[in-house]
Amino acid sequence: MPASRTVTAAVIVIGNEILSGRTHDANLPYLARSLNTVGIRVMEARVIADDEGAIVSAVNACRAAYDHVFTTGGIGPTHDDITSAAVARAFNVALVRDPQAVSLLTHHYAAADLNEARLKMAEVPEGASLIDNPVSAAPGFRIDNVWVLPGVPRILQAMVDGLTAGLKGGDPVLSRTISAFTTESGIASPLADVQQQHGATEIGSYPFVRSGRFGVSLVVRSTDAAALDAAAAAVTAMLRDAGIEPLTEDAPAA
Amino acid sequence: MPASRTVTAAVIVIGNEILSGRTHDANLPYLARSLNTVGIRVMEARVIADDEGAIVSAVNACRAAYDHVFTTGGIGPTHDDITSAAVARAFNVALVRDPQAVSLLTHHYAAADLNEARLKMAEVPEGASLIDNPVSAAPGFRIDNVWVLPGVPRILQAMVDGLTAGLKGGDPVLSRTISAFTTESGIASPLADVQQQHGATEIGSYPFVRSGRFGVSLVVRSTDAAALDAAAAAVTAMLRDAGIEPLTEDAPAA
Repeated sequence: MPASRTVTAAVIVIGNEILSGRTHDANLPYLARSLNTVGIRVMEARVIADDEGAIVSAVNACRAAYDHVFTTGGIGPTHDDITSAAVARAFNVALVRDPQAVSLLTHHYAAADLNEARLKMAEVPEGASLIDNPVSAAPGFRIDNVWVLPGVPRILQAMVDGLTAGLKGGDPVLSRTISAFTTESGIASPLADVQQQHGATEIGSYPFVRSGRFGVSLVVRSTDAAALDAAAAAVTAMLRDAGIEPLTEDAPAA
Repeated sequence: MPASRTVTAAVIVIGNEILSGRTHDANLPYLARSLNTVGIRVMEARVIADDEGAIVSAVNACRAAYDHVFTTGGIGPTHDDITSAAVARAFNVALVRDPQAVSLLTHHYAAADLNEARLKMAEVPEGASLIDNPVSAAPGFRIDNVWVLPGVPRILQAMVDGLTAGLKGGDPVLSRTISAFTTESGIASPLADVQQQHGATEIGSYPFVRSGRFGVSLVVRSTDAAALDAAAAAVTAMLRDAGIEPLTEDAPAA
């Protein structure tokens, strides 16, 4: 594929505890940053309940719309872990006990501890391939363009670190942040001009309050390093023309 | 409406900075908890880009599927703030400068500071009503069942605190959390039995690690206080039958 093609992904966060506000999701930011380093751009995320219909519908909508889909949550041993069964239904295939997954669990747990609840974690949709779990043995899995990962952040992160190296993306989105003590309204008009003149970049404006003072972070993003440099320089010049000294400029980062 | 009807909502988080992983969203948890206190249950959340097509499509899908839709982000003064225009397009109405919103901004800013960028924050879809912003004057707005709120958490929270009192919901979901040092697998089977015997409640199991020890938080939820009490007692008894002493039991909370 040409390097300039955007490889896209959706993230589906599965869990009543996120929708109730009990738990703050930490997996979307981790996935978004990790995937961007290999040139895969998260275009949309959905947070849905532990509900078979909701999972089937979100997985089928997203796998048709994006190159990759990453789900998090619902693959543990308890009755509310229904993601694997729901993904099997989304693909209209059987849920099967995977011999390789059983073997991984057998090596991890003492024989007396390998109960039915743990063996449930060896059930995957027919045709899925396993994703290595370096923390606690119970694997994730991939079926077609859908990657099914756990919700526990420490385990998800270890799995993601292991699989991103094997993913083929497009060009990663590079970014620069230029911050200043000013208001968004004060610079909105010249900033819009900079955006118009630098169409190969995308410029976002994010207000903040620090030590009681209003500030704005201007984030320039592009897959083109030269375009990024030019736009970042134009943002800095725009601020200085307005008599505002930029606070910091980040090094180029993913 | 009967008190037992579930009043539902979707949250749409609008912002490239959330999808890039740069910013962790704090608005979904706040909205979810606040809405639950007035008996409105968040069934789904979507995180989408600052993209007109994405906003139109998410708003129209969610307003048809849920009683209420709350959007956050994209109503500031800069070029990347396109939520108001996109919501107008979703409803197929004009974007108009609201005289009451202009008046609010006029009272907040000195005349010399009320530039075109700030006046952009007075633009709302035709037929919308304003939502009071006690922090920084620029209002949110409501059109039909869609509530359009800002992305800055401090301002969003102040607006939400002001509007929830006027919302009519069903019964709030009550919850109890019972935690213990054990593994999910160790209690999965008796826990599934408790869930089956207490169908008016929903029991979630969430593993944690504290001081290097594995634990599980069992969260019982229900709109029925008596059913909640009975299920929580059954969870506690189930743990004790397994020789596990519960760590803490929260007071009933929203």
